[in-house]
Amino acid sequence: MKELEERILADGKNMGGGILNVNSFLNHQVDCRLMVRIGQELASRFASDEATKILTAEISGIGPALEVGVALGIPVVFARKIWSVTMPRDSYERMVPSHTKGTMVQLIVARDFLTPQDRVLIIDDFLATGKTIGALADIVEESGSQLVGIGAVIEKSFEGGRQALAALGVPIESAVIIDSMEDHRIVFR
Amino acid sequence: MKELEERILADGKNMGGGILNVNSFLNHQVDCRLMVRIGQELASRFASDEATKILTAEISGIGPALEVGVALGIPVVFARKIWSVTMPRDSYERMVPSHTKGTMVQLIVARDFLTPQDRVLIIDDFLATGKTIGALADIVEESGSQLVGIGAVIEKSFEGGRQALAALGVPIESAVIIDSMEDHRIVFR
Repeated sequence: MKELEERILADGKNMGGGILNVNSFLNHQVDCRLMVRIGQELASRFASDEATKILTAEISGIGPALEVGVALGIPVVFARKIWSVTMPRDSYERMVPSHTKGTMVQLIVARDFLTPQDRVLIIDDFLATGKTIGALADIVEESGSQLVGIGAVIEKSFEGGRQALAALGVPIESAVIIDSMEDHRIVFR
Repeated sequence: MKELEERILADGKNMGGGILNVNSFLNHQVDCRLMVRIGQELASRFASDEATKILTAEISGIGPALEVGVALGIPVVFARKIWSVTMPRDSYERMVPSHTKGTMVQLIVARDFLTPQDRVLIIDDFLATGKTIGALADIVEESGSQLVGIGAVIEKSFEGGRQALAALGVPIESAVIIDSMEDHRIVFR
């Protein structure tokens, strides 16, 4: 997705250590209409997969997932990271390491919202090591629903997520793929 | 907003103690196209206010804020609750009590994204006591930008948020207003 590559080069910050800061247009401040176009782009890649539901993880997955959901006309479920009084005690739960927070975080999904009839598309902002998306895929499997695809806004291919998720046997699509962030540069595929 | 009132009556759960659980269509699972219509409804209430930016708080504010931003064609800034390595150490910060988590949470906004030239519209999912929105308004004031309005998806009038925020002197608009949740009922204005 050319527009997004250009925006990352213009406004993204390579912070070293493989950390790409896109806070000015994606993850803290959001360019809403760019997010709509990202959603349409990812939706087009999965248009024939008959997904019935999108699964993502709060916080930064919500924006892209919502816009893919708008484009496909299906609901989004976002895994919560902090328990709240509105969440049932008996929920699907996984622990995953957070890339940018340096801690383990919980992913919690209420059982009601993933059923064996669902065809689930996982959407997230980044595909890096694949651990968060892998945990979401685990939850999909536990729920008995069918995983039909994985979509990310930005893939950092050098962190191996695509290989880690290959065994799931579903299409993996990213709006942009970054092959290298060495020497303060950002190299797209 | 009639459609939202009907959806709350059909799918919302009055959990007692003033807690309205809308996890099935707004806060955990999201009906994306309903969210678009909520965004358009709130955007229409502020169409003449020349807002340049929307400010919200993660997590559940992101969906409605994004769709208001899409409708108005302006960016959204969402206050983060957990510090991450991509956030500058020198940010605007406020502590607020969380209604549904029973703890204090932090709101963090990078200074870069609110400028004295900005006209800011605050959007959140709930207007209850007004403490979260009040803290966001504090951040707007500290930044030197101008607050032009406050919009909420669901207002619980009996928690006094509108009165608490009245001194800010800006229009406050809610897509729906709930006047009572006593006796397991939900009474709209």
